[in-house]
Amino acid sequence: MSDVPTINIGLCGFGTVGQGVWKHLTANRAELEARVGVKLNLARVAVRDARKRRTVKIPRRCLTEDPLAIATDPSIQIVCELMGGTTLARRVTLAALRQGKIVVSANKALICEHGPEIIAAAQKHGGHFFFEASVAGGIPIIKVLREGLVANRFPRIYGILNGTCNYILTQMDEQEAPYAGVLAEAKRLGYAEADESLDVDGWDTAHKACVLAWLAHGAWVRTDQMIVEGISRISPADFKNAATLGFGIKLLAIITRDFAKNELCVRVHPTLLPGANVIAKVNGVFNAISVTGDVVGTTLYSGRGAGQDATASAVISDIADAAALLKHGKGAHLIGEATTMVPRTCRLAPPESIRCRYYLRLTVKDQPGVLARVASVMAKHRVSIASVLQGPADRPDAASLVLTTHESNERAMQGTLRQLKNLASMLEEPLLLRIGDFD
Amino acid sequence: MSDVPTINIGLCGFGTVGQGVWKHLTANRAELEARVGVKLNLARVAVRDARKRRTVKIPRRCLTEDPLAIATDPSIQIVCELMGGTTLARRVTLAALRQGKIVVSANKALICEHGPEIIAAAQKHGGHFFFEASVAGGIPIIKVLREGLVANRFPRIYGILNGTCNYILTQMDEQEAPYAGVLAEAKRLGYAEADESLDVDGWDTAHKACVLAWLAHGAWVRTDQMIVEGISRISPADFKNAATLGFGIKLLAIITRDFAKNELCVRVHPTLLPGANVIAKVNGVFNAISVTGDVVGTTLYSGRGAGQDATASAVISDIADAAALLKHGKGAHLIGEATTMVPRTCRLAPPESIRCRYYLRLTVKDQPGVLARVASVMAKHRVSIASVLQGPADRPDAASLVLTTHESNERAMQGTLRQLKNLASMLEEPLLLRIGDFD
Repeated sequence: MSDVPTINIGLCGFGTVGQGVWKHLTANRAELEARVGVKLNLARVAVRDARKRRTVKIPRRCLTEDPLAIATDPSIQIVCELMGGTTLARRVTLAALRQGKIVVSANKALICEHGPEIIAAAQKHGGHFFFEASVAGGIPIIKVLREGLVANRFPRIYGILNGTCNYILTQMDEQEAPYAGVLAEAKRLGYAEADESLDVDGWDTAHKACVLAWLAHGAWVRTDQMIVEGISRISPADFKNAATLGFGIKLLAIITRDFAKNELCVRVHPTLLPGANVIAKVNGVFNAISVTGDVVGTTLYSGRGAGQDATASAVISDIADAAALLKHGKGAHLIGEATTMVPRTCRLAPPESIRCRYYLRLTVKDQPGVLARVASVMAKHRVSIASVLQGPADRPDAASLVLTTHESNERAMQGTLRQLKNLASMLEEPLLLRIGDFD
Repeated sequence: MSDVPTINIGLCGFGTVGQGVWKHLTANRAELEARVGVKLNLARVAVRDARKRRTVKIPRRCLTEDPLAIATDPSIQIVCELMGGTTLARRVTLAALRQGKIVVSANKALICEHGPEIIAAAQKHGGHFFFEASVAGGIPIIKVLREGLVANRFPRIYGILNGTCNYILTQMDEQEAPYAGVLAEAKRLGYAEADESLDVDGWDTAHKACVLAWLAHGAWVRTDQMIVEGISRISPADFKNAATLGFGIKLLAIITRDFAKNELCVRVHPTLLPGANVIAKVNGVFNAISVTGDVVGTTLYSGRGAGQDATASAVISDIADAAALLKHGKGAHLIGEATTMVPRTCRLAPPESIRCRYYLRLTVKDQPGVLARVASVMAKHRVSIASVLQGPADRPDAASLVLTTHESNERAMQGTLRQLKNLASMLEEPLLLRIGDFD
C-alpha cells in the first residue's frame, strides 16, 4: 500500500457546493480511494471569512481566505473552483492552469464567457480543465458525451437544464397559478435567487447550452448568437391551451447540427413538447437531456440539476478522473478531453434553416374581422395555420386568439410577428412559442 | 504524428453487432482517433464461414475462422468477443485475458455464468475485461455507474433491460391484444427470437441484473438466487385493471441494497409502476434504468437497449477506453474497473425483507362467498386488502377478482398464494404482480 500516491486537493469556495464536496468526499473516502487507486487529501480550503462558524468542521490549518494562494500552491494538484462569478474565478482558474494543475469547475458562466482563454491556458501549460458539474448537476452528461458516446456525432441535443424554471413551469401548470405568484413562492422556498433574471430569462440555460455545444461540436457559440427567450411571459392559459392541443411546456436548450451543411444552431426558449415525449413529464427541479447520436440513436438522461448533493456528486467524479490522470503521469489525458479537442468553425444556422411548428397567442380586440386580418398577415409570410382556438382574454373587451402553424421557419415567423404587432387590433405583445416535434 | 501508437483490434464474431462495430468504427475513425489519441486498426475478424458473401466488405487477409487464433495473436491488443454463447466465448475470453489482453464483451450470459473465473484470469495475467455493451445497449450505464457516479453508493437500481419484453408489453397495452398474438407478430418482425424463452421468461433481464448488481455492489448473485418471473401470464385485462388503478406494467430488474443490514436483493418480475413514474412511459424496444445514489439522488437513463447500432456504440466506447488505457502503459486501469473491485459478501435479503404492495388477479367460480374465502386467507397471512375490482373472466361461469394489497412482504404473499391455489373455487393459477412505489 506504500506505493499508493497521495493527491492533494484544494477547494476554492466553501458555499453550498464546496461543503457538499467536503462532506461526501470525507464520508465515502475509503470506497472512492479504492476505486481510483490513490489517496485523496483535501489539503486546503479557501473561504470568504475564516473565522465564520460552519456546520462542516474543517481544521483551521486547512483554511485560507485567498483562493489564489491555493491556485499557486505547488503542493496542490487539483484545484476545485466552486466560488462562482467570472472575475476572481477566472483569475483563480487561469493561475492554477498556468501551473499545469487540473482545475475542476462548476462554473458554466465562466466557461461560456472565457472558455477559449481557459482552454488555451491549459493547453499551453499542460493543465487540464474538467467541468462535469457545470451542466445538469448530478447527471454525468459531460462524461456521457465525451466518453460513453465517443463513437457518435450529435445531430441533436436538447433538454431542460434549469431546475428553477422547470419548478416554476410545473407549479404554474399543476396549480393553474400565474407566473408572478409562483416566482415569489419559489424565492421563498429558496428555489429561485433574489435576482431571478439569470434563471427565468434563460441565461443560465444558455450558458449550459454553450458548454454542451462546444463539447459536442468543438465550436464556441456566444449567447448573443443564440435565440434566448425566458419563461416570464407564459401564463396559466398557455398550459391549458397546450394541454388541449396535446402538449406540455418546457424551457429547453436545443442544439442542432446539420453535418451536411456544417450548420450549428443553439437556442433557448419555452417549447411545446408533445405529451408522449418523456421530457414533457420531467417535472419540478429535475433536469433532462435528450442526446441523439448518429450511431446510438436517441438516449435520455434525467436527474437533479442542482443542489448541494447532486453537484457534489459531479465535482467528485471530476476529482476521481483528475486523480486517475495524475496517476498516469505527465502527458496523459482523458478521452475527448477539452484540451485535446480540435476547434471547429461551424456556420451558425440562418433563421430560414430553423424550422418548426409554432404556437401564437394573441390578445386582440373582441370585434369582427380580427382573425381575418391576422390570417392575412400570416398568409403573406407563407405561414400556414394548422389550428385556431378562440376564447376570452384576461381583460374586458379582449379576446384570446391561439393559433398553431404547420411547419414554418424563424425568418417567416419573425416577419409575421413584426407585422402582427402593428395591427391596430393587437392589445398586447404577441406570445410566440415553438413546438418541439422531437422523437 | 509519428509518435501516435497504433492499437490492433480483433473482432471475434461478425454477426449483427460485429458488423456494426466494423461499419461505425470505419466510418467515424478519424474523429475517434483524434479523441483517443491513438490509431485504431481493425486487424483481424473471426467469422464462422470466411467464404460467405457479406454486405460489409473486409479484406480477405483480415479474416479467420478461428476466434482462438485472434485471442492468442500477440499482435492483437484488444479482443472483442461478439459471438455470444458461453462455451467458445468463454474459451476465447479466457485465452485472451491469459495473454494480458483487453477483452471487450457484449455477453451478459457469459458474465453471469463465468464472471468470477473471468475476472480472476484478468487479475492474474494483467488483462482487462470491459462490458459496456452487455447491459442496456447504447446507454452507457456501466460507465455511468463506474465513473460518472463514482461518489455514490447505490441503495436502488431498477429498470427495463429487455427491449423485446417491453415491445410485447407495449403492444399488448396499446392494441389490447393477447400475449400469444403479439409474441407471434414480434417474431415475424424480428423483435423476438425463434426461441423466445430467454427474453420473455426474464432470463436475459436476470443476466443483466446480475452484471449491474456485481458492478454496483461487488457481489455475484446467481439467477437461481433471484426471483425471476416473465411476462407470459400477463393479459390485456391486466393492463386495463392497472390503468384503472393508475399504473402501467413493465418487466423490471430491481436491485436494492440495505447498507445498514448489508442485505442485497436482486429480482426480475413484471411490475405495476405508477403512471407518474417516467419509466412507465418508456415504450417499445427502449430500455430505461433508474439509479438512486446516496449522494446524487435518483437519476434516469433511457435509450435503445439492443440492435446493431446501439450495441456498436457501446462496444466502440469500450474500445476507446481500452485504447486510452493501453496508451497509459502497463499497470494502468480505469476508475472502478472490474479487475480492481473489492469482492463483497452481501447477505441475500430474506423474503420478509422484500416489502411492497401487491396486485392479485384471481379467476374464480362465479358464486357467492368466494371473496369472503379469499379475504379470509389473506387475513390469516396478515395481508391487508387495499382495493377489489370484480368483473367477468375470459370463461363462462367464472369471475375475475382483482385485489391490491397494502404494503406486505414476499413471505406473507407466497404463503397467501399457496393457500389460495388450493381453494376449490380457484379456476386458474392466481397471477401475482408486484407494485413498484419508486420515486
